[in-house]
Amino acid sequence: MPLLHRMTQGVFAIAPTPFDGDGAIDFDSLSRLTEFYTSVGVSGLTLLGQLGEAPKLSHEEGVRVVRHVLRQTDLPVVVGVSAPGYAAMEALATEVMSAGASGVMIAPPNTLRTDDRIVSYYEGAAAAIGEHVPFVIQDYPLSFSVEMSPSVIARIANTLPGCVMLKHEDWPGLEKISSLRRMEAAGDMPRLSILCGNGGLFLDFETERGADGAMTGYCVPELLVDIVRHAADDDRDAAHDLFDAHLPLMRYEQQPGVGLAVRKYVMMRRGLLTSDTQRRPGAGLSATARAEVDYLLARLARKDSRVVLTT
Amino acid sequence: MPLLHRMTQGVFAIAPTPFDGDGAIDFDSLSRLTEFYTSVGVSGLTLLGQLGEAPKLSHEEGVRVVRHVLRQTDLPVVVGVSAPGYAAMEALATEVMSAGASGVMIAPPNTLRTDDRIVSYYEGAAAAIGEHVPFVIQDYPLSFSVEMSPSVIARIANTLPGCVMLKHEDWPGLEKISSLRRMEAAGDMPRLSILCGNGGLFLDFETERGADGAMTGYCVPELLVDIVRHAADDDRDAAHDLFDAHLPLMRYEQQPGVGLAVRKYVMMRRGLLTSDTQRRPGAGLSATARAEVDYLLARLARKDSRVVLTT
Amino acid sequence: MPLLHRMTQGVFAIAPTPFDGDGAIDFDSLSRLTEFYTSVGVSGLTLLGQLGEAPKLSHEEGVRVVRHVLRQTDLPVVVGVSAPGYAAMEALATEVMSAGASGVMIAPPNTLRTDDRIVSYYEGAAAAIGEHVPFVIQDYPLSFSVEMSPSVIARIANTLPGCVMLKHEDWPGLEKISSLRRMEAAGDMPRLSILCGNGGLFLDFETERGADGAMTGYCVPELLVDIVRHAADDDRDAAHDLFDAHLPLMRYEQQPGVGLAVRKYVMMRRGLLTSDTQRRPGAGLSATARAEVDYLLARLARKDSRVVLTT
Amino acid sequence: MPLLHRMTQGVFAIAPTPFDGDGAIDFDSLSRLTEFYTSVGVSGLTLLGQLGEAPKLSHEEGVRVVRHVLRQTDLPVVVGVSAPGYAAMEALATEVMSAGASGVMIAPPNTLRTDDRIVSYYEGAAAAIGEHVPFVIQDYPLSFSVEMSPSVIARIANTLPGCVMLKHEDWPGLEKISSLRRMEAAGDMPRLSILCGNGGLFLDFETERGADGAMTGYCVPELLVDIVRHAADDDRDAAHDLFDAHLPLMRYEQQPGVGLAVRKYVMMRRGLLTSDTQRRPGAGLSATARAEVDYLLARLARKDSRVVLTT
Repeated sequence: MPLLHRMTQGVFAIAPTPFDGDGAIDFDSLSRLTEFYTSVGVSGLTLLGQLGEAPKLSHEEGVRVVRHVLRQTDLPVVVGVSAPGYAAMEALATEVMSAGASGVMIAPPNTLRTDDRIVSYYEGAAAAIGEHVPFVIQDYPLSFSVEMSPSVIARIANTLPGCVMLKHEDWPGLEKISSLRRMEAAGDMPRLSILCGNGGLFLDFETERGADGAMTGYCVPELLVDIVRHAADDDRDAAHDLFDAHLPLMRYEQQPGVGLAVRKYVMMRRGLLTSDTQRRPGAGLSATARAEVDYLLARLARKDSRVVLTT
Repeated sequence: MPLLHRMTQGVFAIAPTPFDGDGAIDFDSLSRLTEFYTSVGVSGLTLLGQLGEAPKLSHEEGVRVVRHVLRQTDLPVVVGVSAPGYAAMEALATEVMSAGASGVMIAPPNTLRTDDRIVSYYEGAAAAIGEHVPFVIQDYPLSFSVEMSPSVIARIANTLPGCVMLKHEDWPGLEKISSLRRMEAAGDMPRLSILCGNGGLFLDFETERGADGAMTGYCVPELLVDIVRHAADDDRDAAHDLFDAHLPLMRYEQQPGVGLAVRKYVMMRRGLLTSDTQRRPGAGLSATARAEVDYLLARLARKDSRVVLTT
Repeated sequence: MPLLHRMTQGVFAIAPTPFDGDGAIDFDSLSRLTEFYTSVGVSGLTLLGQLGEAPKLSHEEGVRVVRHVLRQTDLPVVVGVSAPGYAAMEALATEVMSAGASGVMIAPPNTLRTDDRIVSYYEGAAAAIGEHVPFVIQDYPLSFSVEMSPSVIARIANTLPGCVMLKHEDWPGLEKISSLRRMEAAGDMPRLSILCGNGGLFLDFETERGADGAMTGYCVPELLVDIVRHAADDDRDAAHDLFDAHLPLMRYEQQPGVGLAVRKYVMMRRGLLTSDTQRRPGAGLSATARAEVDYLLARLARKDSRVVLTT
Repeated sequence: MPLLHRMTQGVFAIAPTPFDGDGAIDFDSLSRLTEFYTSVGVSGLTLLGQLGEAPKLSHEEGVRVVRHVLRQTDLPVVVGVSAPGYAAMEALATEVMSAGASGVMIAPPNTLRTDDRIVSYYEGAAAAIGEHVPFVIQDYPLSFSVEMSPSVIARIANTLPGCVMLKHEDWPGLEKISSLRRMEAAGDMPRLSILCGNGGLFLDFETERGADGAMTGYCVPELLVDIVRHAADDDRDAAHDLFDAHLPLMRYEQQPGVGLAVRKYVMMRRGLLTSDTQRRPGAGLSATARAEVDYLLARLARKDSRVVLTT
């Protein structure tokens, strides 16, 4: 499998971890999901992210999920290896890289403050996973309470050769993309691949600002693929027309706390997951919420015929 | 001016404070803005909120803004009186209520934790402002870092007769509205007027869940008025069609950190503000960001002919 | 091994996890440490706490540490089982209880807010570990950012029969102990065993307020045992005289961020640990800091002859 | 009055704001307090700090307090001017500097993150107050949730000539003092006066690490003066002997949430304040807590005969 690199482009879909009604990993759904992602043209997959419920999996379960997906697909796979200690991070990174992953993703611990300590944390992490393993900085302040300025990202990228990608999920973030691209152009830092998160909520403009694509888990990844393609074709109005059709659902899915429940519910209705179960503790959807999502899906289906519900 | 009460409905527009290029309050723009809000059919105004840059005004400036608006309009006016100490809160509440305000809004200090301390804080606040002054609970965890469960809101509403309204800005919040309405129906708490914030980003469903309207500062308040009216008429599809047309701009305006800059810029372009200046420290818009907003406005104007730009 | 119960008293020493210079678990030191704790008269041990670097151990390592200690001692052992998901919590709790632990300790996840969600979190946890397993609420706002009022602790204790102990580490906390004891006396909640943390920094008064003892990791646990015994004997001045002699060192050890480094260093100097290594990332002590600790130890040794340094 | 400068040394006592039983400012007690501070040999005073309940005073009240003290003493006076907007900060700084203050103190707003934004915030603040006004960086993460690394302090000191002093209140902080002094010695930043806070809890070692003194509000400021003098005389054991006698009370006073109540109570008992009233909302002392403080005072009086209680 090719390794992640600084020019990586496209959509890396963050896959949810499917569970059956008892909370056991549902490998059949995982196979189906993997096939689906491949069929819609994503450029890669991301496993064991926060929204993959990674912290609720044991080490062994996480490795099994990764191996299962790697057997099913030729797509590059990024694996979240964030952990409270470097020992666990190293163990997981070593295992998944040798299994064929293309890189790992590392989020900062939520008590990390000051630029110096952020840089130092990533230096330690890179030493732990091995300096030749490509890694992704996960920059998601809303969830991790850690803010990284463009200059701290530049310091990490300048210091650590393994740092090849930024999962950009800051908010607001458009100026951040522009700043990073300016710093690269000025020779102040090496180029990074920038893939954007936040459920895709700003992908229409993020691609215009210089992002290379998306790394997020929106329940209709076809949309993400299209937006990135339209951006490559410089077809601005087409990108926004399609984006705007999906925005009501994207916005609903992007609510903190219930987002994953919405995502799994839609994927269940699309026939990709057998169950929308989350491991506990986790927020579910009320009947009213499900009806609201159904209404949004029905409205969306009138504009995007690919949104077909099978259940 | 009628006081706020538990059945208050409609849209309370949160007015930005206009400044001229030097940071002085621009009372001409404030007059123009007040007239505009009245003309588009809002039910009331909210002054000295966070997004009114209230913390950057001196006490005297705040009072002048309120008196100026009260002289211009017959609409009910809610005034934000949040302060680190009850003495300042009491002073401002007394002054604006005697000037003709219809109620005050109180946000929790950002270090407040535990239900008991939240209830106790509001008890102290109500004692300070006077138990007959109607007040609004400002429930905005993303900004204030304080979360209030439905049960703590019920405790406040049961204890304090002045508590008549909830500015609902929790996230996710749809189930919270449903829970509160259920508790009211079960007789567990008195009815509260619920007006929703978050830039209107979920207003389409919030009204369906039982909210009485909106209290937010979206730069096209006509949309908020329409959504609330469609909801009253039970015209679901019309509400969503119109809402969806505005969502791309609403989403852009709702970015933490730059939201107010977007709002002031659009209001300047609509001819309502002479300048989009914020008092420092405050985030401005880059040329690229302004062009993005212009693009969104141009797209919106094709669907909503009221969005006319004069500058 | 007897189970934890509501009348449990004394000192539960929180044991650090010893590592050798390469970061491997040092079971010889763990044996020595266990023997030491037993010899100085503690009433129990707590393993896999935050300061036991539990998050840096794999599940298997954690279980090995627990089994090793249980083989060495007849003291009751409490095991920290906090985890992001209930599945991991259940797995660890089941394993250590069947190995002979006397109870488990559960900290709230750091994003938990509102009384209702705190209670609901512990309900889910109790269901996961089994309702007959005695558990300890770890109430440590400085570290976990979650505050629990006396009333929320009462709700948990009233609802969940397994809740038998509070690890009290709030700050300020003296009034909290008094409040809980008053609520118990008034019949508003069942009695809880209250053992205090915070490095013992307020143990002199906590015992006077009604605490049953300490659960903390101060590097001279003999002091904790003495304070609890003096409190039982109502020998107030003797307790404070001894306490005050240790306070300069306790205060130094209780600094957030370097506390564990101080603790391990002193325990190494006392001959209990072969190395003061922490797993990375972790803060070490500078040469100046070591000299400061040495100076404090020398001063303490003049007042408490048990503080003998062997290295 | 001489301006603050980079070599300023000694103890700057943070004065509480005295209130009478109704919450009005008690200027008689303020006079008595000012005289007392002068008589015990402090080098300066700090007014309108957090623990001076500054956020609970109106602008006019704050100015009156400062003018009152400046009329009573020749000591240099530092005034806290932290405010949500630069306009209020500028107004207060201008007023107190023209009244004779020696400098101002500026805390970062609690949402500030990233080194770049911290530096930029202080640049804006310095521009607002005037670049020739000496200012103190208030570095107090426990209270403000903002962490500043030595390198960010160096950037501020290198950029802004008005930055002459650091109120050091980080925790742990001993290594930070050493780091800053090393950076100064290496020519990486200009010398700063470093005065330490945290109630004096680490002053014994802070002076040894290179601090120039203390800026804190411990209720027995005589102790702070003595420690700084002993440090200047290199009389280490004498410093620690005296320090250790006070530590039990210092530690009790330093509890977050009730510290100010303890401080005001002791100052009342020492005859300095007529009342220990705080403006609401504020935490008071229970009868038990008062008795605990009395006990600590009685124990202390046996070792330090200056601690005389008059009420």
